[in-house]
Amino acid sequence: MNYIEPRLLKGFRDYGPKEQTIRQQMVAKIQNVFERFGFLPMSTPVLEYKEILTGKYGEDEKLIYSFKDNGDRDVAMRYDLTVPLARFVAQNKQQIVYPFKRYQIAPVWRADNPQKGRLREFMQCDIDVIGSDSLLADVGVVACVCSALDEIGVDNYELRISNRGIFNTLSRAMHLDSVQSIEVVRAIDKVKKIGIDGVVKLLQEKQIPNESISMLQTYLEVGEGDEALKELEISFNGVIAEEVRSVGQFINLLKIQGIRDSVLIFDPSIARGMDYYTGFVFEVTMKDNSDFGSIGGGGRYDNLLSTFSSESLPAVGFSIGIDRLFNAMEDSGRLVYKSTTKALIFNVDPSLQTAYLELATKLRAHGINSDIYYSTAKLDKQFKYAESYQIPYAIIMGGDEAAKGVFQVKNLETREQKVVDGDQLIELLSASNL
Amino acid sequence: MNYIEPRLLKGFRDYGPKEQTIRQQMVAKIQNVFERFGFLPMSTPVLEYKEILTGKYGEDEKLIYSFKDNGDRDVAMRYDLTVPLARFVAQNKQQIVYPFKRYQIAPVWRADNPQKGRLREFMQCDIDVIGSDSLLADVGVVACVCSALDEIGVDNYELRISNRGIFNTLSRAMHLDSVQSIEVVRAIDKVKKIGIDGVVKLLQEKQIPNESISMLQTYLEVGEGDEALKELEISFNGVIAEEVRSVGQFINLLKIQGIRDSVLIFDPSIARGMDYYTGFVFEVTMKDNSDFGSIGGGGRYDNLLSTFSSESLPAVGFSIGIDRLFNAMEDSGRLVYKSTTKALIFNVDPSLQTAYLELATKLRAHGINSDIYYSTAKLDKQFKYAESYQIPYAIIMGGDEAAKGVFQVKNLETREQKVVDGDQLIELLSASNL
Repeated sequence: MNYIEPRLLKGFRDYGPKEQTIRQQMVAKIQNVFERFGFLPMSTPVLEYKEILTGKYGEDEKLIYSFKDNGDRDVAMRYDLTVPLARFVAQNKQQIVYPFKRYQIAPVWRADNPQKGRLREFMQCDIDVIGSDSLLADVGVVACVCSALDEIGVDNYELRISNRGIFNTLSRAMHLDSVQSIEVVRAIDKVKKIGIDGVVKLLQEKQIPNESISMLQTYLEVGEGDEALKELEISFNGVIAEEVRSVGQFINLLKIQGIRDSVLIFDPSIARGMDYYTGFVFEVTMKDNSDFGSIGGGGRYDNLLSTFSSESLPAVGFSIGIDRLFNAMEDSGRLVYKSTTKALIFNVDPSLQTAYLELATKLRAHGINSDIYYSTAKLDKQFKYAESYQIPYAIIMGGDEAAKGVFQVKNLETREQKVVDGDQLIELLSASNL
Repeated sequence: MNYIEPRLLKGFRDYGPKEQTIRQQMVAKIQNVFERFGFLPMSTPVLEYKEILTGKYGEDEKLIYSFKDNGDRDVAMRYDLTVPLARFVAQNKQQIVYPFKRYQIAPVWRADNPQKGRLREFMQCDIDVIGSDSLLADVGVVACVCSALDEIGVDNYELRISNRGIFNTLSRAMHLDSVQSIEVVRAIDKVKKIGIDGVVKLLQEKQIPNESISMLQTYLEVGEGDEALKELEISFNGVIAEEVRSVGQFINLLKIQGIRDSVLIFDPSIARGMDYYTGFVFEVTMKDNSDFGSIGGGGRYDNLLSTFSSESLPAVGFSIGIDRLFNAMEDSGRLVYKSTTKALIFNVDPSLQTAYLELATKLRAHGINSDIYYSTAKLDKQFKYAESYQIPYAIIMGGDEAAKGVFQVKNLETREQKVVDGDQLIELLSASNL
């Protein structure tokens, strides 16, 4: 017989029990924080009509997974969670009560060149507020993401903030047309990768006028943080003073929401590649690992619905890439697995099968996650099983114990062993936080 | 400008905030029960090499979504969670510690003809035990699924049980070849839809010998339940006595696990269409709605790994179709939405913006899910917003309240309104189970 080789597609991965336990716990924490900030969940399908997705992602559109389905329809797998949200809102415009605050935590697919920390299937955690142009919406979105990162124990992130309005005003001041100003935004977006010199070279290739390039160079050389904020307010005869000041005000409101000073950084080079941003833009990076790229980003986008409808709605959103974070933590050995199963009932006597089942049922009724070893294998093997899955307690009941109505319970970490009755067993396991 | 019509593909659906809240709560409950029984989570990708999936689903193989990716690879979207599990186990055979108990809750895709309650994208909740041939594994899987159904409040289900061994032995007794015995199983699997006469006609078309058909007719006419069990033990000169008796023993062990008598039904017509089952087979149906079809099923399959490897591993599993259940509950008006957001902070005075943010931060720090209305709209509009999302409490702080350091808090259901200070507010909201 010819066997099929069991293998994975390039850029895709499995998450085994320990990895997936940790990953699900991260997602659950993020979900709790999203709900703490008043966001509600939503789910859209993985497959959409291809035309829904096209024309939104610029040159990255080629990365969309698309095909003809059995009914000869052009369909595509979702590339992000924002465009399906826009489709949903456009489709249900009348029934939705605004502001519409939704979260969605779900995988997306991009046929990108797979590399360290970049998969072709990855989970995004998105929050968006549709139908409000209030600054409080922007503040809420950023504060929520910071809380979520705190909750999952990411202690070394930075939140870099700028305002797309700065580029719009600068472009006008430099008399650039709309194509040129998109080129400027896309070039500046690459500064972390290629440096200021690289940006200058790119702008020269795109035939941006020299005086504009030197203005942009001055702009980028101002650096980041509070000093940069002060300097850009008065640079260029104050032409971008208002937009720069608004970032300062925004940062102050974020501090009121309890976000630490050290996390919040005005970074005038944050541009965000996507064409659709119109106001504040945000990016989350890791402090000690700038090579790693961003683990999340977002901003205000007041025109996204415009491909589906003549009316538009103001919107602001933020997306965290949980799998990049997971990979980063995995690589640095910072994933901590804790078994969800608390006790393994050992199988030492086939005539006690019924008693084992009854005990498991009783423990579970008390909310204690319990497992039974299915066969009467050697004790060694059963201990090995418990240890390899890091189950903290072994419960052993042989004929002697059964006759007396007691159990041996062993803490597999400390090797401490006790004889207890049923009530004591439940008390011990319920109280333990192993 | 030409607008793209915002629309969904046939057979796909969105879940809006209320629907998705309920759906997620169902999933969370099922997940908790799966973990209470010692199952661990796992995640496999949506896309697999097409060859991994083909040759497993019989005539339904044509329903697989498959296409060529950008790298000209033949890829397919997962059709169920069992075959990817088999691929994972075959690929990681050496590293896995057995018995391997995993759960996976994830969507699958089938290009089926969409109809009431049958979507092309739907969520499956699967548990499987790989590497144990112990009866305790079968018992554990069924008990776990029953607990999960109880937990989500499905009070009118039936668990129908049989043993594939019955058909194997009967086929041997009737001297059928392997092709014929598969035809028999597939025909019997259709009895709920087409009746005994329909099955007889089908078997005649497939040229099963007449005496075998009349034997199978006698078999089916025996009905179901304890009476059928007794009768089949002695029928056909006791040729299937052992297999039938094993179902009775199995049902007894399930009762020890606390499963109610009335739920457990021996149903000799349960065959399960899939070719790969080898032992006990199970199906969950709704008591008062047999048209609705099954909402879950499973059984023992000891040969599934065999397409990937010469070694095989015994396995038993069960799958619940959560979206069918969700649809059934939705149709019968039994979905109950409860807001995850507990309080809406009204926005009545723009000069108090900072105070609103501070209050929200404080409530959230106390674990109270809170929302701020983003703009100073009319009170009416803010009340309407809170009511449409069923947020139970409104918190109103105008200039007067702010000066005194108090809040108006209004229960939107009872219309009861109180003036409280900050500590009282937190106490009131924390204690409320609205």
